[in-house]
Amino acid sequence: MRSESDARSARPPRGPLPSLAGFPPPNGRLTGIGIGPLELESGVVLPDVTLAVQAWGEPSADLDNVVLVEHALTGDSHVSGPVDDEHPSPGWWNGMIGPGAPIDTDEWCVLATNVLGGCRGTTGPASLDPDGRAWGSRFPEISIRDQVSAELALADLLGIERFAAVVGGSMGGMRTLEWTVGHPDRVRSALILAVGARATADQIGTQTTQIAAITADPDWQGGDYHGTGRVPRTGLGIARRIAHLTYRTEDELDTRFGNATQPGEDTWHGGRYAVESYLEHQADKLVARFDPGTYVLLTEAMNRHDVGRGRGGVEAALASTPVPVIVGGVDSDRLYPLRQQEELAEHLPGCDGLRVVNSRYGHDGFLTEAEWVTTLLGETMGLARAGRGSAE
Amino acid sequence: MRSESDARSARPPRGPLPSLAGFPPPNGRLTGIGIGPLELESGVVLPDVTLAVQAWGEPSADLDNVVLVEHALTGDSHVSGPVDDEHPSPGWWNGMIGPGAPIDTDEWCVLATNVLGGCRGTTGPASLDPDGRAWGSRFPEISIRDQVSAELALADLLGIERFAAVVGGSMGGMRTLEWTVGHPDRVRSALILAVGARATADQIGTQTTQIAAITADPDWQGGDYHGTGRVPRTGLGIARRIAHLTYRTEDELDTRFGNATQPGEDTWHGGRYAVESYLEHQADKLVARFDPGTYVLLTEAMNRHDVGRGRGGVEAALASTPVPVIVGGVDSDRLYPLRQQEELAEHLPGCDGLRVVNSRYGHDGFLTEAEWVTTLLGETMGLARAGRGSAE
Repeated sequence: MRSESDARSARPPRGPLPSLAGFPPPNGRLTGIGIGPLELESGVVLPDVTLAVQAWGEPSADLDNVVLVEHALTGDSHVSGPVDDEHPSPGWWNGMIGPGAPIDTDEWCVLATNVLGGCRGTTGPASLDPDGRAWGSRFPEISIRDQVSAELALADLLGIERFAAVVGGSMGGMRTLEWTVGHPDRVRSALILAVGARATADQIGTQTTQIAAITADPDWQGGDYHGTGRVPRTGLGIARRIAHLTYRTEDELDTRFGNATQPGEDTWHGGRYAVESYLEHQADKLVARFDPGTYVLLTEAMNRHDVGRGRGGVEAALASTPVPVIVGGVDSDRLYPLRQQEELAEHLPGCDGLRVVNSRYGHDGFLTEAEWVTTLLGETMGLARAGRGSAE
Repeated sequence: MRSESDARSARPPRGPLPSLAGFPPPNGRLTGIGIGPLELESGVVLPDVTLAVQAWGEPSADLDNVVLVEHALTGDSHVSGPVDDEHPSPGWWNGMIGPGAPIDTDEWCVLATNVLGGCRGTTGPASLDPDGRAWGSRFPEISIRDQVSAELALADLLGIERFAAVVGGSMGGMRTLEWTVGHPDRVRSALILAVGARATADQIGTQTTQIAAITADPDWQGGDYHGTGRVPRTGLGIARRIAHLTYRTEDELDTRFGNATQPGEDTWHGGRYAVESYLEHQADKLVARFDPGTYVLLTEAMNRHDVGRGRGGVEAALASTPVPVIVGGVDSDRLYPLRQQEELAEHLPGCDGLRVVNSRYGHDGFLTEAEWVTTLLGETMGLARAGRGSAE
């Protein structure tokens, strides 16, 4: 295993220039950018990586107004915007980006990638390898740091010296934290939401169980199901049902569903409960749009998340970065409990105190608590503006 | 669907007398007692039911010292005692029963059954039907009330007019609550631990997901896997991993395991995390001793748990019983949150206030917090003694 600084210095020479030589268009159109080969934390070199990228707003001449928005596990680069042909769901932070929005595109240019290993345009297990076969089980193990390395390569390619801000929650918060600690010279400010410095036993426990549910599906075929006409949809659906419960709170679920039966069904004769139907619906929605192998790969990367690895531990790693950061947590988050954000806020020198939202939505609060997210994005953009030397 | 009182009055005539005509032996030896046919809440009649029973201590002449101890989902009648040929695990409340123990067998006679639908000697899906075939998918749906109806038939058969106490936690607490509300004239006191008045959406959510993991296993074969040489062990193991996380707390797990790798393994090359290995071990232990069809059936019964069904709702049902009860909860229980025990304590007229234990063990606290359980058993036996007319 290599430390982050090793990996950076040892990055192999770039491959051929991407087909798109400049900045992605400012209208949010999905664009693929080739970043060439990428050396991973494991030492393995992944050849010919493409990142799916979207941008909103015009970059300034010296690219000092670019905000990188990092998506969570099942998100993608479509941060903002309505459902359309390319996007089966609205943006996951819809309304947060645009003229006059919390990240005001009259001032900032937002850049979002689909994460390395993803399935929404970026190279991942469902992509074709150089020989034209789906990667499947042969896709190498990756880490959150590798995902950031890919974005660093993109920043180099686009000529972005420093991001005005990097922002994200959950798995997106992991990448944001890795940017902040691993590349403090490339980040002017950061917003880190609903995440921790490393994976906890509970997170690893539920995540490895979700992986087990997928790999136990006979359609998994060792991860090489692509092109067989069989996809481990049942396993992915079970994984999502497990996960969705961790994203919400028991109180909110019980208030909404209680022990009600799904209308028109009979639980004494094979019918479903309302909450069961709800979870199945959540599962079906994910299964329709997400690759199971990607889910497994990214979940393994989250299990590996540890900002202190190779850096003398969590506290030393956090203490090492001077980047001004906002850290936020949801008081009812049962997956990334508040103690994890308290740890970040305590040990990140650039954090002036934890921002907690009182919410019944649990972990999903970083998506649903729009007013809170708006406030924190405003604070973060303030830090970014101050760092740009043009504070209002 | 029938109300509890309907089901009672409509109970069909008893079948042939059981082979054992009297009380089970006082040494804890496992005994089968036939209670004949049982009409279920659904109206279905289950023919020829046998209950596995164990007893410790001598019953008094008028059977007024009998304490019924109710096991949880994967427990059984082996409440107390060491590992032996019949019992692969020590009793689940080992040390709580015996001469001088919290339930002192010099004073009390403890009776414990394996629940209706169980797989440790009582009639359930893995038992043979009257034609000599495993019940499998043809075993009827049951409720917690049906489990209590079976125990009521046993009490009738043995001549027990009133139990001195009924005690139990989790699914055992559900039966205890159903005894208290449904048959107040048959219970002198009760101890209800770590449970609620009805299943919550969160409990139903995780429980239906566990069922889905089992029924998705191709070895499930629609529930009729008995005798095929294939058992849905993988699915049951995943269900247990899901469940076990709900029984514990994230704090305790993280303190024990953190993100450590299982010694000798490498998570970059297919190795496991320590917490993953721990969960697999918990799963393997259960799979080795428990029937998957029973797990599904009993979990469905827990989903159906609602003490207010057919009784004008939860509050009216709780308000209807005069039985003196002790209600206990674990402050860190994330499956049966304290608000559920608060509801019980508030609305059960015979409860003089909730007993809360501060514990890092979550739901499993009703098994692991021996000092607290000892105290509450002592209080409960005090209520039982007062009701017996022989208070010390």
